[in-house]
Amino acid sequence: MISVIKVGGAVVEDPAQLAILLDEFVKVEGPKVLVHGGGRTATQLATKLGIESKMVGGRRITDSDMLRIVTMVYGGLVNKNIVAQLQARGVNALGLTGADMNIVQAHRRPITPEGIDFGYVGDVDDADGERIQQLLQNGITPVIAPLTHDGKGNMLNINADTMAQTAAVALSSVSVGDVSLTYCFELPGVLRDANNPDSLISKISESDFKNLVADGTISGGMIPKLENAFSALHAGVSSVRITNIQDLQGGTLICK
Amino acid sequence: MISVIKVGGAVVEDPAQLAILLDEFVKVEGPKVLVHGGGRTATQLATKLGIESKMVGGRRITDSDMLRIVTMVYGGLVNKNIVAQLQARGVNALGLTGADMNIVQAHRRPITPEGIDFGYVGDVDDADGERIQQLLQNGITPVIAPLTHDGKGNMLNINADTMAQTAAVALSSVSVGDVSLTYCFELPGVLRDANNPDSLISKISESDFKNLVADGTISGGMIPKLENAFSALHAGVSSVRITNIQDLQGGTLICK
Repeated sequence: MISVIKVGGAVVEDPAQLAILLDEFVKVEGPKVLVHGGGRTATQLATKLGIESKMVGGRRITDSDMLRIVTMVYGGLVNKNIVAQLQARGVNALGLTGADMNIVQAHRRPITPEGIDFGYVGDVDDADGERIQQLLQNGITPVIAPLTHDGKGNMLNINADTMAQTAAVALSSVSVGDVSLTYCFELPGVLRDANNPDSLISKISESDFKNLVADGTISGGMIPKLENAFSALHAGVSSVRITNIQDLQGGTLICK
Repeated sequence: MISVIKVGGAVVEDPAQLAILLDEFVKVEGPKVLVHGGGRTATQLATKLGIESKMVGGRRITDSDMLRIVTMVYGGLVNKNIVAQLQARGVNALGLTGADMNIVQAHRRPITPEGIDFGYVGDVDDADGERIQQLLQNGITPVIAPLTHDGKGNMLNINADTMAQTAAVALSSVSVGDVSLTYCFELPGVLRDANNPDSLISKISESDFKNLVADGTISGGMIPKLENAFSALHAGVSSVRITNIQDLQGGTLICK
């Protein structure tokens, strides 16, 4: 089993939570990949530098100033701190963006039909599962920042959930064994009632999902997260889980 | 022949000069490693954020705020831009710090006898030449930022000349073939008269060096650069060159 684990900004940007996550991550057996976000630190740095953070539908508009910020924060600050802290825990981590060894090929997102230009935001074309697998076979633990390049010399900003899905699917396509994908966030998993942590839904199939969206139980940012999960399953990933850093084997299991 | 090429901040921070360098770098035959600086961008970013850049004898004092800056700038911005631009030129680059795959082991520099605390500045203990060589054998071109870690979870700032020397020496210790080390900077090489680019000294032996320092021809920051060069030669590096980005095979050859 190869484990691909994605952690969002709220976890990686809080030293105490990051320490808990990394302690749990170290315990995960077998080859593993960590994919991280870092959006809050990027927004904070942009604010300090007088650069406005523009969001459309929860997605960041990445102009050239913002691209510099996310390249610094995701590719440098957050990524290398995780690498250093994993090394201190005896995990031989390698920080990567999709540009490194060309592991993720992408193109700049075209202007949308509604006329929105997301700027230096990438849509993924392909990923090199063999190269990632080769690292794992050499005892290396990739730590992937949500960035890649356009093949023309520019870096591109990638949604971190998408990056995790991309890595898991690419590994599925070259692995004989199973690949699991785990999305970690603040809550214990998908909840029936967002205000009640005890209302965890332990398992969601694709037909459950349709019903839960129809009756309003699942809404907002959870919808694209679950759509990502199902598309990963359809592309060969064995299991997808949405959970909390303190319970990497628990939370909500997403199944076909 | 394995080539280790170091470029300073003035080159990597000017898009036009960087393009020239990368065009020349692509032409270098055989396995190669690029080591870069980025100090000016770090100083600029620190100034914008109201963080004071403290220098002692040309060396940066790296407190925790400055460590965040250099981790962002060297490990993120400068490193990933070079990687993206090498990928666009068909070179399969991999951006690294010494923390990645633990390729450079270091410790935090102790407070000097004069009472100077350089902060998060590293002194190198060892480097993993085998791991770097393995990358080269897999067709990967490492692009190394002047950063590493202390094994306790902290990143450390490393002098870029020292990082280049470390990589070259580590490769020499595991390679059957020759390893060359090239320091690129603004001038055509070591000059007899700093104001006259035609006064290039094409070759400097260790005894020449002593005479040139004694008569004042070589002074200031060139002295530690040449000392680094001789120590690399004594540690097994085949040849060291100090030159300009437009003449990677020219400039001043340093020999025992």
